[in-house]
Amino acid sequence: MQSIPTSVDLFNKGLGAIDHALNAGEIAQLDWNLLHEDLSLPTAVLYQDQLQHNLDWMRRFIAAYGMQLAPHGKTTMAPKLFQMQLDAGAWGITLATAQQVKVAYAHGVRRILMANQLVGKQNMAIIAELLADPEFDFYCIVDSARNIEQLADYFSKLGLRLNVLIELGVEGGRSGVRNDGDLDSVLAAIESRQESIALCGVEIYEGVLNDEPSIRTLLHHAVEVTRKLAREGRSLRNPVLLSGAGSAWYDVVAEEFSAAHFEVAVQIILRPGCYLTHDVGAYRQSQSRIAASNPIAQQMNEGLKPALHVWAYVQSLPEAGRAIIGMGKRDAAFDSGFPVPALHFRPGTSAPQPPPEHWIVTKMMDQHAYLEIRPGDDLRVGDMVAFDICHPCLTFDKWRTLPILNGDFKVIDIVQTFF
Amino acid sequence: MQSIPTSVDLFNKGLGAIDHALNAGEIAQLDWNLLHEDLSLPTAVLYQDQLQHNLDWMRRFIAAYGMQLAPHGKTTMAPKLFQMQLDAGAWGITLATAQQVKVAYAHGVRRILMANQLVGKQNMAIIAELLADPEFDFYCIVDSARNIEQLADYFSKLGLRLNVLIELGVEGGRSGVRNDGDLDSVLAAIESRQESIALCGVEIYEGVLNDEPSIRTLLHHAVEVTRKLAREGRSLRNPVLLSGAGSAWYDVVAEEFSAAHFEVAVQIILRPGCYLTHDVGAYRQSQSRIAASNPIAQQMNEGLKPALHVWAYVQSLPEAGRAIIGMGKRDAAFDSGFPVPALHFRPGTSAPQPPPEHWIVTKMMDQHAYLEIRPGDDLRVGDMVAFDICHPCLTFDKWRTLPILNGDFKVIDIVQTFF
Repeated sequence: MQSIPTSVDLFNKGLGAIDHALNAGEIAQLDWNLLHEDLSLPTAVLYQDQLQHNLDWMRRFIAAYGMQLAPHGKTTMAPKLFQMQLDAGAWGITLATAQQVKVAYAHGVRRILMANQLVGKQNMAIIAELLADPEFDFYCIVDSARNIEQLADYFSKLGLRLNVLIELGVEGGRSGVRNDGDLDSVLAAIESRQESIALCGVEIYEGVLNDEPSIRTLLHHAVEVTRKLAREGRSLRNPVLLSGAGSAWYDVVAEEFSAAHFEVAVQIILRPGCYLTHDVGAYRQSQSRIAASNPIAQQMNEGLKPALHVWAYVQSLPEAGRAIIGMGKRDAAFDSGFPVPALHFRPGTSAPQPPPEHWIVTKMMDQHAYLEIRPGDDLRVGDMVAFDICHPCLTFDKWRTLPILNGDFKVIDIVQTFF
Repeated sequence: MQSIPTSVDLFNKGLGAIDHALNAGEIAQLDWNLLHEDLSLPTAVLYQDQLQHNLDWMRRFIAAYGMQLAPHGKTTMAPKLFQMQLDAGAWGITLATAQQVKVAYAHGVRRILMANQLVGKQNMAIIAELLADPEFDFYCIVDSARNIEQLADYFSKLGLRLNVLIELGVEGGRSGVRNDGDLDSVLAAIESRQESIALCGVEIYEGVLNDEPSIRTLLHHAVEVTRKLAREGRSLRNPVLLSGAGSAWYDVVAEEFSAAHFEVAVQIILRPGCYLTHDVGAYRQSQSRIAASNPIAQQMNEGLKPALHVWAYVQSLPEAGRAIIGMGKRDAAFDSGFPVPALHFRPGTSAPQPPPEHWIVTKMMDQHAYLEIRPGDDLRVGDMVAFDICHPCLTFDKWRTLPILNGDFKVIDIVQTFF
């Protein structure tokens, strides 16, 4: 496979002036500072201090439970951030598609849990090519005999064996085996194709459920099925893998899985992805619940911190009570809450200030946001506003490059995404 | 400015197998065919025949009114598609941000209407650099004295003069001058800075309104203001520019502006962008209205056709009545209607078939869609489904490369986007 691109071209939004492609290290030498208006807004930026805080927080949380972390990389699709997560002790990286796996592998990730079904000739080909590397430790999930047949047909011809986890699901949910009959059929399909399909454990995604009792029921079921597979000697991997946890309920998954008793060695892998940047939407709500109820979280001084802002200009103040901001659906997630003003900065002044709480985004279009203000607020065309975001996944995928800022708003690095 | 990148790297989703970067022409030689599963799904594809049909349709529509077209390029941000639009007679390309202008210029576009305010030091620097080229014909819009002061301060230092259109808006709308007092203040600001700000005409975006009578009122107002500027000799451009029209009401704009009488030469520029790919959401609804009411549209045999599909695999059939599709909010717009099944294909069969009308997407997550089906429907894991989309703008920006297919689903070209 070709060596990876390391240079940043001059066409990406949110950067400063470059007239030819540069690598991130060269860009860091340019001394760009957000507050000097060196960047073309809108821009999405990451804050180094907050990233480090969040990396450390999750490392300590996972370690306290004696589990391991495979953060969901689909959130950021930024190999530089994957490497930060691995450097902070992550066991591997979780991903959602074959293309995402290809990107991560090409950037050095050698242990990947693809928490999704692998379907289709070209997608199987992508994985098969990577499996030629004996150092590559890869798992995907299965929930149907038909998919297992398709995988076995493809990989057996190449003399390869694919590691799989059985996904358990819930009625009304997403993918995953719903009942004992379907589980038996999946197990039978795996058993009949053991030459090319290696069962390694169990996977669930509790995030399709919204209430704690139902989630705990699903987790108990996952523990039961893991025990059954162990008892029946069906896993070809020792320890057996058991994986769960999105970014909203990882505490409950940690509690349940760590409390479970197994008769064989079981390795528990948690997969939250949004902790790295956090947000002020659904994940802040989750974090409040976790801070209130989880004993490990309570031992830590501070919770997760928002590490991602989208900065944009006020471009029009067309009528009383309304500012038009140069940030739209192309720039920030809008599906689980609009961006929330976090800082207000007037170029030429010394430092950003907290905005009034009554500033609220009320509407977003492709390239614009409507900000509700009050008559008399000190806001001008050309002022800069930083927005906290709700839902990092659907913000990252709108940017090909994100500057990392230090505490002085100086650009110290550039993160590239590969969506 | 550096020469533009012409190669496609190997990390983009939705492509076939390549192990090093290739240019689009080389990829077209690889004989990829969607129906042979040569592409990694999900993939967003364009259909050559439908693109050509839509290009021709809009060319004829605009010509019938004696107007000119500057299609909004922010929809696709694909220079190859800009060139198709220019080749089909477009006067220029409309864009929304300085970075978008930079991308278009670097790919050869030399007449650009930035239908947005230009705000901020680095954004002004991007435009100033391009204005050094005397061949570059550029316009942006203004709606406040403060923005005019900022622009004049910046461009006068460089000895440059910026062409501007005054934007007229409506109470409760987006940007744009709301009343006569504000118009006077904008005109006074321009007059006092004529050395660096050249007034060239009037711009409106009627798409912030939802009803035809209000839109016609705004259009009449734009005509009145254009007459006033002409009468007072305020435009430094001859003919005076008058521009309006998004993708939903361009027929009404064409009717009103073409019927207006001006005492000086006025050049009318319409800016729809979504006609190129069309959709099955809001723009199909608009097109039905246009087909029913517009005499020019009625003279043409067929209306616009959807030219963009997202193809994805069925990855799970976990319970009766539900298919899980490997296409999510990362792959297709979801803000003005979910994607709609358009074709169903089983690999190994001869041709795609129309899907049952009762197949409906009921939910989307980041990487998945829930497809409601009926028990007994002939749908299997590994089947491919093509989806029509609602809102092309928020679909294009999820893809860095889109294959163009011929009528046999063969990849004949690759379109790169620059968001």
